Amino acid sequence: MNYLNRILLFAVIASPVYCQAELPLMPMPAKVSRTAGGSPLTIQPDFSASIEGAGASDARVRAGVRRALARLTAQTGVPVSTKLAPATTQPKLLVKVERLDHPAPQKLGDPEDYRLSITGTQARLDAATPLGAVRGLETLLQLVQPGKTGFELPAVEIEDSPRFPWRGLSFDVSRHFMPMPVMKRTLDGMAAVKLNVLHWHLSDDEGFRVESKRFPKLQQLASDGMYYTQAEVGEIIAYARERGIRVVPEFDIPGHTTAWFAAYPQFASGKGPYHIRHSQTETGDTMNPAQEATYVFLNGLIGEMAALFPDAYFHVGGDEVNPKDWKANASIQAFMKQHKLENEDALQAYFTRRIQTIVARHGKRMAGWDEILRPDIPKSIVIQSWRGQKSLADAAKQGYDGILSAGWYLDLMQTAAQHYAVDPFKGETAGLSTEERKHIFGGEATMWEEIASAENIDAKLWPRLAAIAERLWSPESVTDVPSMYRRLEMANRWLETLGLRQRSELVLMRQRLVGDAPTEPLETFVTALEPVKDYARHEENDHLFGPLLPLNRLVDSIAPESDAAREFNAAVDRYLTIGRTREAAAALESELGRWSASVAQVLPTLGSNGILAETVPAAHSLEQTCQSGLAALVSLRLGQPLGADWAKSKLAELDEAAKPKADLLVQIVPGVKKLVEAASR
Amino acid sequence: MNYLNRILLFAVIASPVYCQAELPLMPMPAKVSRTAGGSPLTIQPDFSASIEGAGASDARVRAGVRRALARLTAQTGVPVSTKLAPATTQPKLLVKVERLDHPAPQKLGDPEDYRLSITGTQARLDAATPLGAVRGLETLLQLVQPGKTGFELPAVEIEDSPRFPWRGLSFDVSRHFMPMPVMKRTLDGMAAVKLNVLHWHLSDDEGFRVESKRFPKLQQLASDGMYYTQAEVGEIIAYARERGIRVVPEFDIPGHTTAWFAAYPQFASGKGPYHIRHSQTETGDTMNPAQEATYVFLNGLIGEMAALFPDAYFHVGGDEVNPKDWKANASIQAFMKQHKLENEDALQAYFTRRIQTIVARHGKRMAGWDEILRPDIPKSIVIQSWRGQKSLADAAKQGYDGILSAGWYLDLMQTAAQHYAVDPFKGETAGLSTEERKHIFGGEATMWEEIASAENIDAKLWPRLAAIAERLWSPESVTDVPSMYRRLEMANRWLETLGLRQRSELVLMRQRLVGDAPTEPLETFVTALEPVKDYARHEENDHLFGPLLPLNRLVDSIAPESDAAREFNAAVDRYLTIGRTREAAAALESELGRWSASVAQVLPTLGSNGILAETVPAAHSLEQTCQSGLAALVSLRLGQPLGADWAKSKLAELDEAAKPKADLLVQIVPGVKKLVEAASR
Repeated sequence: MNYLNRILLFAVIASPVYCQAELPLMPMPAKVSRTAGGSPLTIQPDFSASIEGAGASDARVRAGVRRALARLTAQTGVPVSTKLAPATTQPKLLVKVERLDHPAPQKLGDPEDYRLSITGTQARLDAATPLGAVRGLETLLQLVQPGKTGFELPAVEIEDSPRFPWRGLSFDVSRHFMPMPVMKRTLDGMAAVKLNVLHWHLSDDEGFRVESKRFPKLQQLASDGMYYTQAEVGEIIAYARERGIRVVPEFDIPGHTTAWFAAYPQFASGKGPYHIRHSQTETGDTMNPAQEATYVFLNGLIGEMAALFPDAYFHVGGDEVNPKDWKANASIQAFMKQHKLENEDALQAYFTRRIQTIVARHGKRMAGWDEILRPDIPKSIVIQSWRGQKSLADAAKQGYDGILSAGWYLDLMQTAAQHYAVDPFKGETAGLSTEERKHIFGGEATMWEEIASAENIDAKLWPRLAAIAERLWSPESVTDVPSMYRRLEMANRWLETLGLRQRSELVLMRQRLVGDAPTEPLETFVTALEPVKDYARHEENDHLFGPLLPLNRLVDSIAPESDAAREFNAAVDRYLTIGRTREAAAALESELGRWSASVAQVLPTLGSNGILAETVPAAHSLEQTCQSGLAALVSLRLGQPLGADWAKSKLAELDEAAKPKADLLVQIVPGVKKLVEAASR
Repeated sequence: MNYLNRILLFAVIASPVYCQAELPLMPMPAKVSRTAGGSPLTIQPDFSASIEGAGASDARVRAGVRRALARLTAQTGVPVSTKLAPATTQPKLLVKVERLDHPAPQKLGDPEDYRLSITGTQARLDAATPLGAVRGLETLLQLVQPGKTGFELPAVEIEDSPRFPWRGLSFDVSRHFMPMPVMKRTLDGMAAVKLNVLHWHLSDDEGFRVESKRFPKLQQLASDGMYYTQAEVGEIIAYARERGIRVVPEFDIPGHTTAWFAAYPQFASGKGPYHIRHSQTETGDTMNPAQEATYVFLNGLIGEMAALFPDAYFHVGGDEVNPKDWKANASIQAFMKQHKLENEDALQAYFTRRIQTIVARHGKRMAGWDEILRPDIPKSIVIQSWRGQKSLADAAKQGYDGILSAGWYLDLMQTAAQHYAVDPFKGETAGLSTEERKHIFGGEATMWEEIASAENIDAKLWPRLAAIAERLWSPESVTDVPSMYRRLEMANRWLETLGLRQRSELVLMRQRLVGDAPTEPLETFVTALEPVKDYARHEENDHLFGPLLPLNRLVDSIAPESDAAREFNAAVDRYLTIGRTREAAAALESELGRWSASVAQVLPTLGSNGILAETVPAAHSLEQTCQSGLAALVSLRLGQPLGADWAKSKLAELDEAAKPKADLLVQIVPGVKKLVEAASR
């Protein structure tokens, strides 16, 4: 095969983006229609924007439009002034906003709809409110693409509004602290995909991450020095608000509180001594719900934090309470007897009701993980369902509001397609009545940080978070997985232009790993790999996790999902089912050959490197997989079946190859298995 | 040829880094010896550092060591505490600094020497002064590499001191403004390669970039809103000082001052009206040296700026004065007659002497471009030689101090090897006596920003600036070009870890250019290309340059030097002179085949894209070049000469292919020409 064919065929099987007509939008708006034959609007240095209507005096709209102009320059390299022009000057972008903002903070359900109309002379964005305009500007920016006239906006008419009013990211900054620049670029990315809630998981066993002026020992003794000052919290809230994002704080109680007790052991259920949890072998500790002092303390802290965070909702966690210290503590047991609490579960319900009262006293609606759903708890709470959709359905049926997180755990390294398939109205919630459905506000992706650091967090979040954002924003009917993946590739590109580093940072991490060796072999090798899934890494290594564990291995340096492996497996399916052409076989052979060659070339580097050495078995597995696939393809090409015995031995080999090694999975095994099976008969 | 061979052979010819024993140091220290058989020092989470001696209380040393610890984490992924440990704890890094700093600012010639000794148990850095410690920490960080035990520091003994005391970068922020983050990361990179002078070219026809409190119209009317506040200037000076870098400001007078006249036309030689120069067709304007008011104004401004910038040197430019307005202005002509100044050259000499007096009055030594070297000017000035080494030699012979810039113009897109070959003591300076040589303080690379923006500036500076830095720091005998290129590749890597974006930003720019098309074909295509050299782009397009010209073309998105093309040409040389093996021929064929395939695949993208369309002819030239090379290689492999006529026609074709197209050069033409010539006979 000559080089040209090799590369062209490779492109056919491996390149994700081939549908030129598809607009690079994510989430897909409710209604999009391209204007047939319409001229695009070209971005030139004289591009200008102005604001009409009440919004012309709104700070959020003005800042949003100016930010959009700066981003237009970043996305095109065309130097565009960020000064706003008078509406009389026939600006290239006219933003009309009817009403002013209501006073901050943003409320759940604030209207987010907008209309966008682009012709060859003007882009016009109409929104009733500043929030809608903020959403529409993101759509506008996603549409910018190089075309015949330079960088262009296509002629298009868009009408858009969200499917759910609560679209969030639950973001753990306790297990690994996330510095301010990470927080800000995460908010940038969230705004780009129209998410509107940052659920900030600010405390856990591993650290309390906010300055408290009332209880300063929390940051002094319970944070390892890594916390946000109240000024920084204010900065994040303002930054989020500019982008149309609410900030809901979470202080997880009564479990997940070990770090707190490094500062205030008197509120713990056990005897201590306590220190910030630095390894997952240490069990998590629990607050003492059987003494009034705990509630006095929590009333003070919640009062302070309720004033610091303006959102109407306040999250108190409530998950995974380990009752061991309650059982062992005689005074707690006596308290239970006295209050007729028959078991520890009832004690937690008691605690939850007390906390709900405190939260309500400070003017907030309480949110919590699904454990907080207990008899007698007021209907004003919001249930975040993490243990499955059943709890969400149960809550809705009982008249409680809820949001979905089960199925959207980004830390579990599942594929975008898996998350995309999850829907708040599918599964156990499918049978809900229209009235009951209204209790489901939407959902939140979650990102737990036991094995993610500031260095690789972008790659853990993006681009998969964009697929979840689409599920929550776009109509229920938007479910085409190949389209989602094509647009996800484009999202990957514009997210990096926006400042996210989900690809480029991993490149640097891998470059660091090879030292002075060539980078190319490792770059090719890793395209066949994914990290192990679900809690596999926890089960094996939980005892090691903690802030001192280096997250610098190969598994930490690769994307959760391999585009190349997914597309290889899909190409195998097409080859076996649609058409066994010579070209398709050659393309698959070429891919396998490339991976095989990368193994041969990367092995010397792996072998001489203390950190990469653990990946040698995975490399051998990949090589073996490639050889099996190549043999099967030759057999299929020649029409010479290799027989059942051969297939049996190869499939056994492939089962071994599919096993995790150094927390890595060779993700082309499924496709190669199918080739081997086909070649056997 | 199978895939494995293809890729392995590709690596042999194309990968720059194969000398494992070579330490990734740039600039090379004066003395380096590896300890044979010595154990490396492994970087673990318990890595700690402490400071001994007087330096233990020095803010610059303390900040430097803490920064080094943070960078160690970034370079390894190993979480290392940035707290300093007591020296009694057997720290992994012990820094001993004998003396305290003298009061700021840093002076020319402040000692920079240090010793670094690394064993399996400790890295020990000894320096007489904080400045030496700052230099030694950079060497330490460059040594970190993955090895058998994880990330390691090799067992090594280093003694180091610089060859020249003035090692700078002359940095134009007038033609394109460079925001604070660019300034800071540029200083980070400069410190990493041990440069010690930021020569900040703060004003030119296109903008005056510093806030003046005495003459605020300068920033209000002469900067397009893009300037550094005095607080920001102070921030840069402090940031530079922490890194051992002096900041020498330049206010270029009496030419290159058009922008000034947008604020203060009364100091111009012509009639105006004046505005900031936005295109290079507009001629530059000149100050009026024939009126006392000009000197009163300059005395005020220089006084203010001399106080703002603490360095002992003050640069007043003085280059490229266009005398047209002086000739046309009757009062200036009258002034010349009155002062017996026989021509405009003499008038400039008069102006320079007046300015020197003003600069001296404010306590500074005046620096300027080589035009300021005039009879009667005091010996205290410093000459920056930009028009060639002759002026430097002339100055030194007359007893003037000087620094070299000729040959180090980074904006001219020359190769690292070209810049590396330039030496302050070679060429016209070679004949200087030992005494005369002492007048040569060192040199400065220059970067003019007519066709560079904040977006691609890192790629214009790096990694080539590191090669110039080595010339100025390392012993004169360090001249091995292949070694320089190998270490430059490593520098490229650690510079990006440090936050520079010389590669990653160009990847994003090219990704932006292809829109939703696959990125890989363009990525391969551009490895055969370089931008046109010297002033070719100016000559063609000077009239277009200005702040409103988009710098988003392919030529703006590629590196000044193509590693792949250089290595291809070198591989051709080796093939033709050392050994015409089948493997070497196959490797060259493979490379040409890859480029040829990339052209076939990239052409549809180029053709449908208004910005890339101009590059179609360059793509065709590359394709033609590849085909000629492939034909020649087949002929050589088969031993069947293709004859003189064939060669003649191919060489003519190649001459056409070598011509710039869309400001791009196909840089593999030289190697292919040699193949064609060899194949003809």
